[in-house]
Amino acid sequence: MTKTLLKNIALYRNHIVEEGKNLVITDDRITAFPATADGDYDVVIDGKGMLATPGFVNTHNHIAMTAFRSYADDMRLMDWLEKKIWPAEAKLDGDIVYAQARLGIAEMLRCGTTSFADMYFFMDDVARAVEETGIRAALSRGLTGITPNAQAALQENKDLFRTWHRRGDGRITVMFGPHAPYTCPTAYMRQVVAAAGELGAEIHMHLSETKGEVETVRKEYGKSPIAWADDLGVFDCGCLAAHCVWVDDDDIDILAAKHVRVAHNPGSNLKLASGVAPVPKLLEKGVIVGLGTDGASSNNNLDIMEEMHLAALIHKADTFDPLVIPAEKAVHLLTEGGAKALGYSDIGKLEVGWKADITLIDREGLHWYPKNDTLSLLAYAANSFDVDTVFVNGKLLLQNKEFTTLDIEKIKYEAERSKEKMLSSLS
Amino acid sequence: MTKTLLKNIALYRNHIVEEGKNLVITDDRITAFPATADGDYDVVIDGKGMLATPGFVNTHNHIAMTAFRSYADDMRLMDWLEKKIWPAEAKLDGDIVYAQARLGIAEMLRCGTTSFADMYFFMDDVARAVEETGIRAALSRGLTGITPNAQAALQENKDLFRTWHRRGDGRITVMFGPHAPYTCPTAYMRQVVAAAGELGAEIHMHLSETKGEVETVRKEYGKSPIAWADDLGVFDCGCLAAHCVWVDDDDIDILAAKHVRVAHNPGSNLKLASGVAPVPKLLEKGVIVGLGTDGASSNNNLDIMEEMHLAALIHKADTFDPLVIPAEKAVHLLTEGGAKALGYSDIGKLEVGWKADITLIDREGLHWYPKNDTLSLLAYAANSFDVDTVFVNGKLLLQNKEFTTLDIEKIKYEAERSKEKMLSSLS
Repeated sequence: MTKTLLKNIALYRNHIVEEGKNLVITDDRITAFPATADGDYDVVIDGKGMLATPGFVNTHNHIAMTAFRSYADDMRLMDWLEKKIWPAEAKLDGDIVYAQARLGIAEMLRCGTTSFADMYFFMDDVARAVEETGIRAALSRGLTGITPNAQAALQENKDLFRTWHRRGDGRITVMFGPHAPYTCPTAYMRQVVAAAGELGAEIHMHLSETKGEVETVRKEYGKSPIAWADDLGVFDCGCLAAHCVWVDDDDIDILAAKHVRVAHNPGSNLKLASGVAPVPKLLEKGVIVGLGTDGASSNNNLDIMEEMHLAALIHKADTFDPLVIPAEKAVHLLTEGGAKALGYSDIGKLEVGWKADITLIDREGLHWYPKNDTLSLLAYAANSFDVDTVFVNGKLLLQNKEFTTLDIEKIKYEAERSKEKMLSSLS
Repeated sequence: MTKTLLKNIALYRNHIVEEGKNLVITDDRITAFPATADGDYDVVIDGKGMLATPGFVNTHNHIAMTAFRSYADDMRLMDWLEKKIWPAEAKLDGDIVYAQARLGIAEMLRCGTTSFADMYFFMDDVARAVEETGIRAALSRGLTGITPNAQAALQENKDLFRTWHRRGDGRITVMFGPHAPYTCPTAYMRQVVAAAGELGAEIHMHLSETKGEVETVRKEYGKSPIAWADDLGVFDCGCLAAHCVWVDDDDIDILAAKHVRVAHNPGSNLKLASGVAPVPKLLEKGVIVGLGTDGASSNNNLDIMEEMHLAALIHKADTFDPLVIPAEKAVHLLTEGGAKALGYSDIGKLEVGWKADITLIDREGLHWYPKNDTLSLLAYAANSFDVDTVFVNGKLLLQNKEFTTLDIEKIKYEAERSKEKMLSSLS
């Protein structure tokens, strides 16, 4: 048993911040908020006025796409896919995905992220990177029904579940990852839903990302992507729906009624010119929303605090209402909203008995002065370099802005090496 | 004479990046790009693969409003002004403004900003902070014609010009700062334009920020704010127009024909729910555009790299065109566009004979890996903590991410002390 005391911290709980608090971690859980710092502990960390929040959650990623970060920007979607991404993706292997996943995980931890949802391929290698690095993840094998490997991929997702679900001290969960309505025809989706149902797995899927997608699906099926997915039973499995930019009132009613959790990716939606998701309306109707970066190729970083900042800003202009997504709501999306979106029931709040996924934020940067409202400073003024300390599952992974376990120079070297390997096999 | 060599740098020039270059600064100017690092220099800085860009320019600020950073967020504009900001502003004095200006200047330098435009009051104290800290600035006294101090303020702006224009080794320029069409009636504006014309000063003014402003002006004057300002001769003085969110095609034609320079403030426009300025159209018509943070009370930081990132993202979604404001254009807005917006003719490019306002960017962060396109990484993935070194007017003000001349602990202390002084006089 290991007992760690975080003393002298500001504590974000119940949507407010309280100064001068103490927090005890016993093994992987939060076990007390003692009034004083007295007592016997294995480790004592002086928070020096830092702010403790639940670890940040990145609800939508394709982590190995760090390989394509700034590799091919400012292109039209189909040009980008056909000329650059698909040919390069065909050259990926487990070695490259593993190296890129380690890079992406390190970047996320550095930004205060303690758990993420991922959908890609060579997912055994992503799972291995997750297990080794200590982060928490909900992993899914990206599935498309229109490619020759459709059945093999579905089998891989089943195997991924059997091999990795609840592994890594419970940090890894596995979902099924049907890519999108326009790449997963109805018959294939029925197979996916059946497989997920059989294993008791949830589903992570892109839904209603672009106007074009919604038009295509309406033309083909006579209904919206949301209604189509609902009719197929996708939401009955438990579903994390990425994007939901082009959802109408009927769609939102379905999302709310079926407890679908939405991964909102403001940076990616802006960069790809997809649009702005109706997040204020989703929240008003009680839909659970978390934040995601999407892959680094369409962002181009994995900085979830930047997504919080975008979420706090863009919906105000989109609705012409300066009161939507106020600071405390933005911080909620970053933490508890994200944890709920990933299906966690004991993560996303700092409470006794809950998992010790904790981010400590340094408030000594110039942009934190003068000391006015802390939550507002966090939502509107902070940046991810303020993240000082990160615990996942009770383990200290970042302290004083340095990694405690990862060899960052090696991670950068391997990311570069494996990217060069991919590029050289292209030419 | 002091000669400084920056060696082994990547150089952003003519919209591209070249690796392995050297740059020589002699006193306040760039004097050579030698092929080798040989020779006699007073100072040699090894750039170790860092990227050198022209110093960043923040084209619109109310710097002392750092006092109100996160002081009153998530409120409606008139509530915010009437209940919080105006009562607090009435308690400001030169001491408070000086301390807050030093805080804001330090924050801007830390983010790679080498020059800024400001409009506020107690501007002698802001000028003093600019002179002492070494940053470059275009300062104006905020003027409103509907308050009792209208004539006194105009006189202050004249005095500011006579006292400070071209002072601080030429780093300080002074403009006139009529606040906005709805606070400066026509008769007052005629006085302002006459005073500016007499002194050969330019004008810095908020124009067409909100839909409500345009409606009010059209109702009162039968024309748009842009047409109204043009008819009054504002643009003939040389004009930096802040915001220009609600400009139509006729307005844009005027802005282009009269060489008006636009300060684009995406963060502030989003946060206040003002809207999204038609920047792609402004650029297409040849209007000069730079980036601004606006005051810290409506942002809430002074991080101009974040504004670049916003500018690179939001116009894509606003126009549903993923090709608008590509990476190189975003970087141009941050540097040369901003410098032109402030009226500088030998700042904003890294060229022989131009002023040595230079920002060096560390490319070793995880989000800079793998090494794909540098400009794309700068526009889409970087953040202001990557800023490593800053020169203004040939003087080294930041190195290894630390200030070389400013006492940051004292600046933070004074910012907090002076804010508390303001708050205590309110109660």
